[in-house]
Amino acid sequence: MLEESMDKPHIVTCTAPVNIAVIKYWGKRNEELILPINSSLSVTLHQDQLKTTTTVASSRSFQEDQIWLNGKEEDITHPRLQSCLREIRRLARKRRNDGDSGLDSTGLSHKVHICSVNNFPTAAGLASSAAGFACLVYTLARVFGVEGELSGIARQGSGSACRSMYGGFVQWIMGQKDDGKDSLAQQVEPETHWPELRILVLVASAERKPVGSTSGMQTSVQTSCLLKHRAESVAPGRMVEMIEAVRRKNFAAFAELTMKDSNQFHATCLDTYPPIFYLSSVSQQVITLVHRYNSYYGETRLAYTFDAGPNAVIFTLQQHVPEFVQVVQHFFPPETNGGQFIKGLPVNCTDLPEELKQAIGLEPMPKGISYVISTKAGPGPCVVEDPTQHLLESDGWPKKTE
Amino acid sequence: MLEESMDKPHIVTCTAPVNIAVIKYWGKRNEELILPINSSLSVTLHQDQLKTTTTVASSRSFQEDQIWLNGKEEDITHPRLQSCLREIRRLARKRRNDGDSGLDSTGLSHKVHICSVNNFPTAAGLASSAAGFACLVYTLARVFGVEGELSGIARQGSGSACRSMYGGFVQWIMGQKDDGKDSLAQQVEPETHWPELRILVLVASAERKPVGSTSGMQTSVQTSCLLKHRAESVAPGRMVEMIEAVRRKNFAAFAELTMKDSNQFHATCLDTYPPIFYLSSVSQQVITLVHRYNSYYGETRLAYTFDAGPNAVIFTLQQHVPEFVQVVQHFFPPETNGGQFIKGLPVNCTDLPEELKQAIGLEPMPKGISYVISTKAGPGPCVVEDPTQHLLESDGWPKKTE
Repeated sequence: MLEESMDKPHIVTCTAPVNIAVIKYWGKRNEELILPINSSLSVTLHQDQLKTTTTVASSRSFQEDQIWLNGKEEDITHPRLQSCLREIRRLARKRRNDGDSGLDSTGLSHKVHICSVNNFPTAAGLASSAAGFACLVYTLARVFGVEGELSGIARQGSGSACRSMYGGFVQWIMGQKDDGKDSLAQQVEPETHWPELRILVLVASAERKPVGSTSGMQTSVQTSCLLKHRAESVAPGRMVEMIEAVRRKNFAAFAELTMKDSNQFHATCLDTYPPIFYLSSVSQQVITLVHRYNSYYGETRLAYTFDAGPNAVIFTLQQHVPEFVQVVQHFFPPETNGGQFIKGLPVNCTDLPEELKQAIGLEPMPKGISYVISTKAGPGPCVVEDPTQHLLESDGWPKKTE
Repeated sequence: MLEESMDKPHIVTCTAPVNIAVIKYWGKRNEELILPINSSLSVTLHQDQLKTTTTVASSRSFQEDQIWLNGKEEDITHPRLQSCLREIRRLARKRRNDGDSGLDSTGLSHKVHICSVNNFPTAAGLASSAAGFACLVYTLARVFGVEGELSGIARQGSGSACRSMYGGFVQWIMGQKDDGKDSLAQQVEPETHWPELRILVLVASAERKPVGSTSGMQTSVQTSCLLKHRAESVAPGRMVEMIEAVRRKNFAAFAELTMKDSNQFHATCLDTYPPIFYLSSVSQQVITLVHRYNSYYGETRLAYTFDAGPNAVIFTLQQHVPEFVQVVQHFFPPETNGGQFIKGLPVNCTDLPEELKQAIGLEPMPKGISYVISTKAGPGPCVVEDPTQHLLESDGWPKKTE
């Protein structure tokens, strides 16, 4: 029965995090290699709240590579998926040719079955492709026995995926080389560096499907002269300032730069022709609310940032979370029969001072925000050791769902 | 009775137009003299639809300068009003000293009574201060017998007022001098140059009072690095292109540059810290609608531009007006019991092709637009010869209103 045992698939499951950029990435200088026009910096969100789980099975008995995303088979010939598969196999071949075979049992000719799920709805508008490609690359690397720098491969799946290869505070250095070999992610500080920092994802009720980021950034690069200026003359200095603010845990500096950079990114979207709008009226209300809250206290206690969609991501320190959540509930009254409004890390109850409510002085927008995910900075991708967590059966095929 | 006749006030009434910038002015390099950080270009709107009327009376019997705006006495000590009064009197003195007295009967020591009204609601959010200061300066100049270049004085009342001193297509050349003597408006082409051009003001239902333009542009100059880049490196080239497009009556070039420049102005507002939002969800819907309309026809038939508020100003050619108005009525269904939806130049009825409706494919926003003012390019300030049109009684005091 040697034959059968050799055919038994090699199965690995890993998880990877979402990240949220505080110095934004928008625009590629090379579409195929996914090389950006400026460096960026992000915070990796904790996987207890938001993660992708991916299982990869490899077997000589598989006829072809196949992929299932959130329960549905998808087209494996997608160029970016192919880039990641090709690059991991190339690295594995290189290691083997270098006589550094490792412990892996996966042959280079083996086909893979990939199954991936998110623990958060795609509707949350969080850059699920970053966590997805980070998880794919991390898991494939384990299966093929590849170690070391992997962010350059994840980058070729989805630009921002390279930043999800590390925990904590992560920079994506744009690099200078034409082949992209120096366009890599690097940890600036680990997730343990700033334990008081809290992150709240305000999931806005989506009005309409926004322009996708791939085509959006293409149009921006082609048409926005402000984007070119930002990438060349503004972003480099902001990277230096942001790294400094993170290293020193200077919340005010971190927060102000985060807000300015989010605004500048959306400004370049508006300078795009035709213009792109990602900020909804709910987003605008959150922005106004944050500035009035900070101004009431005479210090910067909150920061917002928005990616290519209407959801706000709020940064604050632990001690300000309960009051801010009250503020959100007051100015965006949730559906009374809706589910839990606050998900994730527990939030204590507190009073909302009448004077603060007055100072903010906005007209409440009922149901403007569907729910809030309370989280913090977290670690990079991990291997799931428990085999019961595999998303594929031991024969390497998806579990039957009724 | 010589005494009494000499005391009889000298009364002059003039009208002046609103203008709408297609290359935007945003940001001063000198707050007091109102010197801009870039040149701008506007179209003067026809006074049949939108105008300010101002009557100035001067008499040696008046004790002090006084002003009434839209029926209410206002503070004459406002610094910008004082600038205009001072500069006109200075010019009058200069002329008299040069022995070039003219026909005026107003002594330099005479005080003035000023009364001014707009024929459009302030709520229309049209830059009424431009028409207002242009009219004030033009009328004062007549009263004090001052002729020649007046845009430099109007500029000191409200920057964009200098452009309302001419009809048709007008540039405000930023100038280089510290004293602002070369920061003047100049007609590029008269109002008769492009008779097919039509202008539709889409008055949006205001959600909230936006940030005033004076303080808004101050904050932008202080905080937006994109604005600095725009003023130094983008606007100069756009002025050249825009003048060329106007001269050649190249609608597509004119329209695209108009839209891009409006978007870039709003982008710099968003890059301001804290950010400034002038575009409402109605404005965004108009922008999307215009791009889809143009894309349906495969040519640029419409352009939008937005100033410091949510109202859209649409440029198009005469033959496209009836259909576009149908489109607006379809996607912004007016109140059934409201007043006339289309004001100003008459618009013919037409059918709205089903296919066009489908191609635009937006969710209608009921009552998003209150009404539309249909107009075209028009002449600069004029003297009203008919004395029954004076806004002040022959004694120089406001007419009694019950």
